[in-house]
Amino acid sequence: MKAITLLGSTGSIGVSTLALVREFPELFRIYGLVAGRNLTLLAKQIKEFSPKCVAIKDEADVPRLRRLIGNKVEILFGESGAAAVASAPEVDTVLAAIVGGAGLMPTLHGLLAGKEIALANKEALVMAGQIFVDAAKKKGVRLLPVDSEHSAIFQCLQGNQRAEVDKIILTASGGPFLRTALNRLDKVSVAQALKHPNWKMGQKITVDSATMMNKGLEVIEARWEFDMDPNSIQVVIHPQSVVHSMVRYQDGSIIAQLGINDMRIPIAYALSFPNRLRGSWRSLDLTQRGELNFLPVEKRRFPALSLAYEALREGGTMPAVLNAANEIAVAAFLSGRIGFREIHRIINKTMRKHVNRAAAEIGEVLEVDRWARQHASVLVH
Amino acid sequence: MKAITLLGSTGSIGVSTLALVREFPELFRIYGLVAGRNLTLLAKQIKEFSPKCVAIKDEADVPRLRRLIGNKVEILFGESGAAAVASAPEVDTVLAAIVGGAGLMPTLHGLLAGKEIALANKEALVMAGQIFVDAAKKKGVRLLPVDSEHSAIFQCLQGNQRAEVDKIILTASGGPFLRTALNRLDKVSVAQALKHPNWKMGQKITVDSATMMNKGLEVIEARWEFDMDPNSIQVVIHPQSVVHSMVRYQDGSIIAQLGINDMRIPIAYALSFPNRLRGSWRSLDLTQRGELNFLPVEKRRFPALSLAYEALREGGTMPAVLNAANEIAVAAFLSGRIGFREIHRIINKTMRKHVNRAAAEIGEVLEVDRWARQHASVLVH
Repeated sequence: MKAITLLGSTGSIGVSTLALVREFPELFRIYGLVAGRNLTLLAKQIKEFSPKCVAIKDEADVPRLRRLIGNKVEILFGESGAAAVASAPEVDTVLAAIVGGAGLMPTLHGLLAGKEIALANKEALVMAGQIFVDAAKKKGVRLLPVDSEHSAIFQCLQGNQRAEVDKIILTASGGPFLRTALNRLDKVSVAQALKHPNWKMGQKITVDSATMMNKGLEVIEARWEFDMDPNSIQVVIHPQSVVHSMVRYQDGSIIAQLGINDMRIPIAYALSFPNRLRGSWRSLDLTQRGELNFLPVEKRRFPALSLAYEALREGGTMPAVLNAANEIAVAAFLSGRIGFREIHRIINKTMRKHVNRAAAEIGEVLEVDRWARQHASVLVH
Repeated sequence: MKAITLLGSTGSIGVSTLALVREFPELFRIYGLVAGRNLTLLAKQIKEFSPKCVAIKDEADVPRLRRLIGNKVEILFGESGAAAVASAPEVDTVLAAIVGGAGLMPTLHGLLAGKEIALANKEALVMAGQIFVDAAKKKGVRLLPVDSEHSAIFQCLQGNQRAEVDKIILTASGGPFLRTALNRLDKVSVAQALKHPNWKMGQKITVDSATMMNKGLEVIEARWEFDMDPNSIQVVIHPQSVVHSMVRYQDGSIIAQLGINDMRIPIAYALSFPNRLRGSWRSLDLTQRGELNFLPVEKRRFPALSLAYEALREGGTMPAVLNAANEIAVAAFLSGRIGFREIHRIINKTMRKHVNRAAAEIGEVLEVDRWARQHASVLVH
């Protein structure tokens, strides 16, 4: 039985993880839940899964949660609270699913405590890839990918030799604007950006899919997760999102993972690796799927992807800047303060202003993260 | 350095194998070549690859081959000659690529001598699957698939657990008659049947692709090679032949192998397993391939596939009957003696006449094979 701390329990990945725990109570139990401000849902989750311990974002919310759940569970708060729930001795695995830079520190605390990390929070590796990889190596701990693309790659690497990998091929749906006229992208609405063709996800990641920054962050994540040279990571548009990603080997063969779009599958693979669970979800039937297409990425349509490759190649703190500026810009877009095409312009301008340096200490990364958020915020106003 | 005996050196797979040996002389050398009647090509191969030993089909051809190659190589003939070349102590691997039932005995001799078998001759497993599998187990020898579909499945099984396999999904191009009106199939010509849309192969297998008996034989091959229940082997039409086959796991995920249509790739995988070789062939670029489609098999269009499933489910000597009758019927079609739709009718009638029995001894299998050939031949005339 695996004891899990779930960072981000009320988000989309968190809810899918709990559905999986509900389905396999003989395999998994919840030790801790960490959430933000959705106390109503968190209270329901606490009642159903009886964690030993929970942590929420703000101390001010503690009394209200206490009223909702009674006295039975310990309630912590803030970064130190999340860190404590992630690093408690009883925990086997930390499922890291807090969206954005906020997920970085609790995940790192879990890792430094020697916990196996099932990683849905790609920002951790984007901001501090080297630090995470070094810590995982030092602690002898596995980083298991949860993102459907990275889970696919991880699956396609099994039973093969890493030295024989030629290319990692990340598939991208292209999002809602794959075929929108380029000169109309300035005027697309928030509602249009939130209409993802294939996946139901949170708002931030859905906008990231529309700009393709999501794929850019995934490229950086893949670089660290699979120790790949940036030039060996390729993005291909695959509008149907049936092939979740691929690995091409030096013999020219491609191994691909395909599936329905249900996050319980990659979550289950991360939590039960090297086993695969027979869940209640459907299997993929390719004869029901119509045609599959694969297209090169149009760079002018998706400048955010080029920015991500640039940040990755520059290395150091630049990917943290990319990520922070993107978070600010996407939030501004979602609240109607800037247009869709301003997102990559704000990221670009913030990157130009940044004096890059080595990201050797997490403190430096956080400092740069703060700087980039401030700088991008000024650009928004 | 792997010493190889190549059974069927002048056929399509044989020629591809020698191209691979030519490209990787530091990995492979040819110990023996076994061929039929294409003495001109065989003589060229002998000059280039300097085998220790060759075997040809007919004793009567020995003097002519001797004139072509001079005195340097030992020339054997007939079944015993092929068996000797396959089972010589110096041999590490037998690449079994003789087409049809004729490949059975030399392959079995290699296996019984404890050689690793790279198997392109699917008829061996169709006719005598249990005997082959038992012998391989007893000798502690691997059967490595060379067929592109089975190589794909073998690749998709690596790093996974056999108990978690849900289905093996063989892809079939559908051949040249995938979209021909059903009522016109009676009148298709030999030339039309030999126009395979994706692969360049020998005549027999190309006609088998048009009837889909090739896929039927592959289903039976897969049953033995991967120890699968017939109900867990599915055929899906994939007209582009880019996905070479797939494995679906109990978590609903599909792992697929994709590649260009070059037999050097699966041959290389079989000969260098678990390594992959970087050859001179192209890599697959999916963005250059247009759409990929997957369709269910239309049973009325491809009755040969249903016959193969039936023979597999009945077991015993019935698959040997299916294979023998098919060889006779395809030869009759190729020589213009019967129409295309007569092929499956002759197989069907031969199967109806056969009193099935256990295929415990290779002698029984060969006896049934002879009976079925005779019976089918009578039906042709």
